[in-house]
Amino acid sequence: MDLADYLQHQSERVNAALNRWVPPESAEPEIIHRAMRYSLFAGGKRLRPILAMAAAEAIHPACTGIEDAACALEMIHTYSLIHDDLPSLDNDDLRRGRPTNHKVFGEAMAILAGDALLTLAFEVLASLPHCPEDRGIRILNEVARSSGTIGGMIAGQVHDLQGEGKSPDTTLLEKIHRAKTGALLRASVRLGALYAGASDTQYESLSRYGEHIGLAFQIVDDLLDIEQSSEQLGKTAGKDAAQKKITFPAVYGVDPSRRMAEAQLAAALESLRPFGESAHWLAEIARLIVRRKT
Amino acid sequence: MDLADYLQHQSERVNAALNRWVPPESAEPEIIHRAMRYSLFAGGKRLRPILAMAAAEAIHPACTGIEDAACALEMIHTYSLIHDDLPSLDNDDLRRGRPTNHKVFGEAMAILAGDALLTLAFEVLASLPHCPEDRGIRILNEVARSSGTIGGMIAGQVHDLQGEGKSPDTTLLEKIHRAKTGALLRASVRLGALYAGASDTQYESLSRYGEHIGLAFQIVDDLLDIEQSSEQLGKTAGKDAAQKKITFPAVYGVDPSRRMAEAQLAAALESLRPFGESAHWLAEIARLIVRRKT
Repeated sequence: MDLADYLQHQSERVNAALNRWVPPESAEPEIIHRAMRYSLFAGGKRLRPILAMAAAEAIHPACTGIEDAACALEMIHTYSLIHDDLPSLDNDDLRRGRPTNHKVFGEAMAILAGDALLTLAFEVLASLPHCPEDRGIRILNEVARSSGTIGGMIAGQVHDLQGEGKSPDTTLLEKIHRAKTGALLRASVRLGALYAGASDTQYESLSRYGEHIGLAFQIVDDLLDIEQSSEQLGKTAGKDAAQKKITFPAVYGVDPSRRMAEAQLAAALESLRPFGESAHWLAEIARLIVRRKT
Repeated sequence: MDLADYLQHQSERVNAALNRWVPPESAEPEIIHRAMRYSLFAGGKRLRPILAMAAAEAIHPACTGIEDAACALEMIHTYSLIHDDLPSLDNDDLRRGRPTNHKVFGEAMAILAGDALLTLAFEVLASLPHCPEDRGIRILNEVARSSGTIGGMIAGQVHDLQGEGKSPDTTLLEKIHRAKTGALLRASVRLGALYAGASDTQYESLSRYGEHIGLAFQIVDDLLDIEQSSEQLGKTAGKDAAQKKITFPAVYGVDPSRRMAEAQLAAALESLRPFGESAHWLAEIARLIVRRKT
């Protein structure tokens, strides 16, 4: 199986899980379920759930029900995109090549659809039949903290909003990105590790892997915003510069940023060494994160 | 101890728990913690956590740490108020006698503060040291479902938005209110029951109590919106009529609504009968809900 086939197979598992957990469009109130599904099934790459599944499978090759736990990460990621795109935040009209949620459903429904996806993510994580309760609690705790205001996703979003127009600053840059995208990516890997019953040592190694790919992911995202067109990205390109955001290329320059991403990749691969061949897909995903074109 | 003393004592316990769980205003990023605390400590009556604590104590008189679990309910209630007040939803400028969150911190920060309170509520519920994990998972599940889109708080909010301007309809009215306020009030009582290790029979009785007081609460809320001034309520009065909301007095008239509230109170008290004197405070709270003036 090559990486493309693997990703295809895993995203089908994630999509099936999402379809089971998210109420159908016909469920009352229909409009909110339509809004939730519109953004959830908009062609996302399912990176976070796939990372969780690959991490779990590096510990234990057949992890029953891991796709259910993993799909909660996609709900949280999607909620954050819906809210970030709102007029009072990033004010974006385009996401994954389609109008953003509030452009289709209006602001009120977009706010509620985001709230609903966040809430449903925790419901899913509190409903895993194949997961012992002590692991479930640890997973819930990790996911909530990584999404919160102390070094988590919301902290990153706040720093990002406050950073607009400020002079490039390496400390602020790292703080923004560790929190904004890094925390949930690391939590995705950790979720898989916890679900599969990783030892403390395994958990630490996978956490380091998660941190390195998180940073790599954001550096590459910043580079793509400069290098690619809106059409290629499926979202408005060049927005970082227009909004005077603090980005890696703005702080370090394009070539050094590219080298930093490669260094993070090397460190991520190094963290996987103890797992040998069972971390094959985690390694492949790390390479893809750094070398992707969209 | 009379009811006023009891409520004062219990709300101090809730406030102390909130203070422990919500990062201080000095924690980075400061602005989000200021925004969260602004709405959390705005003079709320702490009804939901106090219900949870009273329910737990009806089962087991000394329930260590129940105030930690209970304070998560106040976070969820407060998040829902912050988001409901936003310009694209109810567009309210006044709440508990003070400017609403977005009037002080701006829309972006109000959206994120709501998101953060919802996220923190789940973190708290996944961090209860005195609660066995299986109970913790059941509590998390109940709280998430009561806040969600299938008969939960968000469903109520959506029905409410869609109901504006529609002709008064008893089915829609009950659907809105069972979901919008009823679900979280019932969940508050259930949280206490689960935390204290209620038997199935006790859980069912307390759930019925929760449903009756939930409905009573909403009927009285609708009546107060007509009868009281903005100054007395600390929020804009008469908004229901202005926004053509579907309310109990609009559907049934004022006097029949008042009688319905009293009937719900009687049913709530009946559900408490098996608990005898240990449900004293639950009974007192039910009476207060129906006879309050704000």
